Amino acid sequence: MTTPLDSPETPLETTARLLVTCPDKPGIVATVSNFLYNHGANITALDQHSTDPTGGVFFMRLEFQLPHADLPPEVFERSFERAVANRYEMQWQISYPANAKKTAILVSKYDHALMELLWRWSRAELPTDVSMVISNHRDMQQAVERFDIPYHHVPVEKGRKEEAEQRMLKLLDGQADLIVLARYMQILTKDFVDQYTDKIINIHHSFLPAFVGAGPYRKAAERGVKLIGATAHYVTEKLDAGPIIDQDVIRVTHRQSVQDLKERGRSIERDVLARAVKWHLEDRIIVYGNKTVVFA
Amino acid sequence: MTTPLDSPETPLETTARLLVTCPDKPGIVATVSNFLYNHGANITALDQHSTDPTGGVFFMRLEFQLPHADLPPEVFERSFERAVANRYEMQWQISYPANAKKTAILVSKYDHALMELLWRWSRAELPTDVSMVISNHRDMQQAVERFDIPYHHVPVEKGRKEEAEQRMLKLLDGQADLIVLARYMQILTKDFVDQYTDKIINIHHSFLPAFVGAGPYRKAAERGVKLIGATAHYVTEKLDAGPIIDQDVIRVTHRQSVQDLKERGRSIERDVLARAVKWHLEDRIIVYGNKTVVFA
Amino acid sequence: MTTPLDSPETPLETTARLLVTCPDKPGIVATVSNFLYNHGANITALDQHSTDPTGGVFFMRLEFQLPHADLPPEVFERSFERAVANRYEMQWQISYPANAKKTAILVSKYDHALMELLWRWSRAELPTDVSMVISNHRDMQQAVERFDIPYHHVPVEKGRKEEAEQRMLKLLDGQADLIVLARYMQILTKDFVDQYTDKIINIHHSFLPAFVGAGPYRKAAERGVKLIGATAHYVTEKLDAGPIIDQDVIRVTHRQSVQDLKERGRSIERDVLARAVKWHLEDRIIVYGNKTVVFA
Amino acid sequence: MTTPLDSPETPLETTARLLVTCPDKPGIVATVSNFLYNHGANITALDQHSTDPTGGVFFMRLEFQLPHADLPPEVFERSFERAVANRYEMQWQISYPANAKKTAILVSKYDHALMELLWRWSRAELPTDVSMVISNHRDMQQAVERFDIPYHHVPVEKGRKEEAEQRMLKLLDGQADLIVLARYMQILTKDFVDQYTDKIINIHHSFLPAFVGAGPYRKAAERGVKLIGATAHYVTEKLDAGPIIDQDVIRVTHRQSVQDLKERGRSIERDVLARAVKWHLEDRIIVYGNKTVVFA
Repeated sequence: MTTPLDSPETPLETTARLLVTCPDKPGIVATVSNFLYNHGANITALDQHSTDPTGGVFFMRLEFQLPHADLPPEVFERSFERAVANRYEMQWQISYPANAKKTAILVSKYDHALMELLWRWSRAELPTDVSMVISNHRDMQQAVERFDIPYHHVPVEKGRKEEAEQRMLKLLDGQADLIVLARYMQILTKDFVDQYTDKIINIHHSFLPAFVGAGPYRKAAERGVKLIGATAHYVTEKLDAGPIIDQDVIRVTHRQSVQDLKERGRSIERDVLARAVKWHLEDRIIVYGNKTVVFA
Repeated sequence: MTTPLDSPETPLETTARLLVTCPDKPGIVATVSNFLYNHGANITALDQHSTDPTGGVFFMRLEFQLPHADLPPEVFERSFERAVANRYEMQWQISYPANAKKTAILVSKYDHALMELLWRWSRAELPTDVSMVISNHRDMQQAVERFDIPYHHVPVEKGRKEEAEQRMLKLLDGQADLIVLARYMQILTKDFVDQYTDKIINIHHSFLPAFVGAGPYRKAAERGVKLIGATAHYVTEKLDAGPIIDQDVIRVTHRQSVQDLKERGRSIERDVLARAVKWHLEDRIIVYGNKTVVFA
Repeated sequence: MTTPLDSPETPLETTARLLVTCPDKPGIVATVSNFLYNHGANITALDQHSTDPTGGVFFMRLEFQLPHADLPPEVFERSFERAVANRYEMQWQISYPANAKKTAILVSKYDHALMELLWRWSRAELPTDVSMVISNHRDMQQAVERFDIPYHHVPVEKGRKEEAEQRMLKLLDGQADLIVLARYMQILTKDFVDQYTDKIINIHHSFLPAFVGAGPYRKAAERGVKLIGATAHYVTEKLDAGPIIDQDVIRVTHRQSVQDLKERGRSIERDVLARAVKWHLEDRIIVYGNKTVVFA
Repeated sequence: MTTPLDSPETPLETTARLLVTCPDKPGIVATVSNFLYNHGANITALDQHSTDPTGGVFFMRLEFQLPHADLPPEVFERSFERAVANRYEMQWQISYPANAKKTAILVSKYDHALMELLWRWSRAELPTDVSMVISNHRDMQQAVERFDIPYHHVPVEKGRKEEAEQRMLKLLDGQADLIVLARYMQILTKDFVDQYTDKIINIHHSFLPAFVGAGPYRKAAERGVKLIGATAHYVTEKLDAGPIIDQDVIRVTHRQSVQDLKERGRSIERDVLARAVKWHLEDRIIVYGNKTVVFA
């Protein structure tokens, strides 16, 4: 699946991506690919998944080259809706990489996840516009502003979280197709989360078994776990229980101090979060129920 | 991609798989999926890959439910050839999991790769008929016969390899859709290999860097490598240089003896070979030039 | 750390291993190594670990060549106890690889873990005498007896588990330095477990997050986990919560069916269990509280 | 092995580390540990390795708390040499973490390896003083100077490499206990390398099989490799063939473009290099012949 970015033959400006979820039935692929063909669009990547061909759910991701400007996108989309989507009861979205998604990053005091994202972004590994960084602390202002990214300090005072979230929502309005919690240590309210369904990505440590509450790395060391890991997931109102996007682990032994475990944990968190964000930006993830289909 | 085996809704008897390689052009997916739809076939899995949408090579794997017996397979295939394949200059094959592929295993004295395959096969993890085991030694005769599999002892005497290969070719004739070299230590001649193009899978150890010649594990230990691995590939006349199907590695340290390295090497070889064989049996691999596209 | 098995210079017959746990204090290493030196023993491997040099706990594993027969083991051990162990309040054990440990394997119906152990054992990868296999089913009797290992069928009838365990304890008496639960699906009573403290190894699947109750693979698939794994641990009366010996995971995607997840799970279970058993047999594990120190 | 850094009980100021290589003989551990005990030093970590207890080579790493200031280090070291080292023909070194090693980083145009090191260093994950960055380009001057690290631009003109190296050697003189080639694309001359034996660490990509010459990622993509990796090693005059410190790999498929492979390659290079540098700084590596013993 040659991505547009590295292949001069699939120019970014004429690329579009379609994500589809619908009840599985015969003929979906034929209908969609016919529609595209008849509109002069050339499919360059296609992934599909079905939970069960008879009565299951069907997922598809298509990347295609847009017709040679015979139709404006709105007309194309309306036509797709009438001719295809309605017929198969599709949930669908078409996105255009040429219109880069806007990403806002929320962070508290740990800087590793934030810096990994800014760094990859600055070397064009993350196809997005980073519209702002919001933090409840001032610690990283200077580091962020070096990247010419606006930094908003929105402290969250005890008992006044709603107020802080209102300020954040105002800042984010129209500026965030994706919100990344890069070790943002405040729990977002249901109200906030509901405005960005399947658009907030969080990263947190993961262990086998899990350790709830404070000091998880110390607990993991005390329990002698042999693997530590991280999970990136979409945020729902249920803390750390949203749809999993990616996970990874690293081996540890009794030799590692709690400090070592934390260092390795940071390293894993950086990798897993960067992958998850990239997949989201490339429209590779479909959320279904409490799980994801990732066409990576 | 729900496999037929575990989903009662996609019965094995009516499943077919299509593998396609052809020059990339607009309309391929539409044409193929239309053809299938019009013949009453329901696509249950589709993977595609293109090296370049403009002038590149297009690969596709389709799994579908055959029409309700309105056509015998030969008619269906001839119709596909005329209506679709010829038009797009496709190399293609349709296979039917209900007709299990026949697998012959060649082995010398190391038993780990052979036993892993027989074991997985005996618990229905490998969808195939193991038609025979051929060995240039007698060591594993008893172990193989316990699985009710014919064991042929074909010694390879010095200077008389051709003779031995002739005997093997006779045994294999019509009995081998796949030949697995499960640590078969004789080099096959070009003549032999040419009769089973892209149908012989071999497994061998791999290191970073590579160590040629005898005693690779000792050399790897002496060089202090930190990873040892294995590569499964299709056999071509060029020794160990055929299209790679899968690879994997495991970490080692200075603490491991040469004996330990060999043990870990065996473990990796078993895993990688079993994966490669399974993918071949499930028609997930397309060979193109000296590389593979694996729709895993 | 050249293991005795593969180095002719460290003959198995004269090898001994010392495991030590004691309060950390200056001088332990000097005292132990002096003692060995003065008795003509040559240290060939030494690993140590301290939770904290001041007031912490000290762990050590030593492999050494026994003196040239100047002392019988009992005298040597008594001397060690008086001269060293008592002084540092050590918990300790000396073992002699020449006296192979006896291993009993308990199994129910899943054969993958059992067969992996028997297989490795049959090719001398596990330094032990497999004294017997006990099962609450008859399914694997034939497969086990092919290895010339006694197979005892001890069914566990509802409400009569105690009776069954009594029978098992009788069979095991004097025949089990290690008991491996190779997918033995009965929960052992506290009474049973107490007779084999830190001598029963179990293997079970592990996920991030964990899924309790029946059908864990189906639940994991439904939750869309991206990693599935296995944990080997010593059995305590608290189900699946004993000291962890080793863990590992494998990546999965939405493409894998529940059946696929189970296959991969079995593969990981085989690996992790075999490693844990080997480490136990080589006296590489010290249990401390609810965790392990593994000198691998 | 609680490291000094995270345990208040093993203060950095009184920590010392001893690395030893010598012919293996009975009594080494006893003699060394006695010496330390008699001088009031407390061993907090000990690792050893022997290639063969009879006539092999013995390696040891000891971390200990220095005596309560009864001796200046020089006296302590001279005493060790006379009483222990000479007797066993040891190559040895004692280092003191309180005197942080000086690290110089050489870089060309790729910034990922450099930035990873500076970043980890800035959050105290790498115990060293970064004395300078030298580059044959100006590209990263600003990024480096933000960390308050001197940046020296030493261009290497065609045919005048020796001159450039002379300038570099002058800058490095007394300022580099370790030189890290963080994607420095100039080949160092034998003369340069000889002045920093086992003190120059390089990182480079690794594949199975290897691809020599220009464009390795493109070649790897064309060959369809399923793993790409990186190797960190000490630099010798033989290009990329020095003692391996660490290696790692990541899985790839036909779906990844050459651009994707490069991105993943960078990610692996960052990780592997950071580990190797950390181990060097913590005196965990002993070079022996063309291999390393890493007490990680």
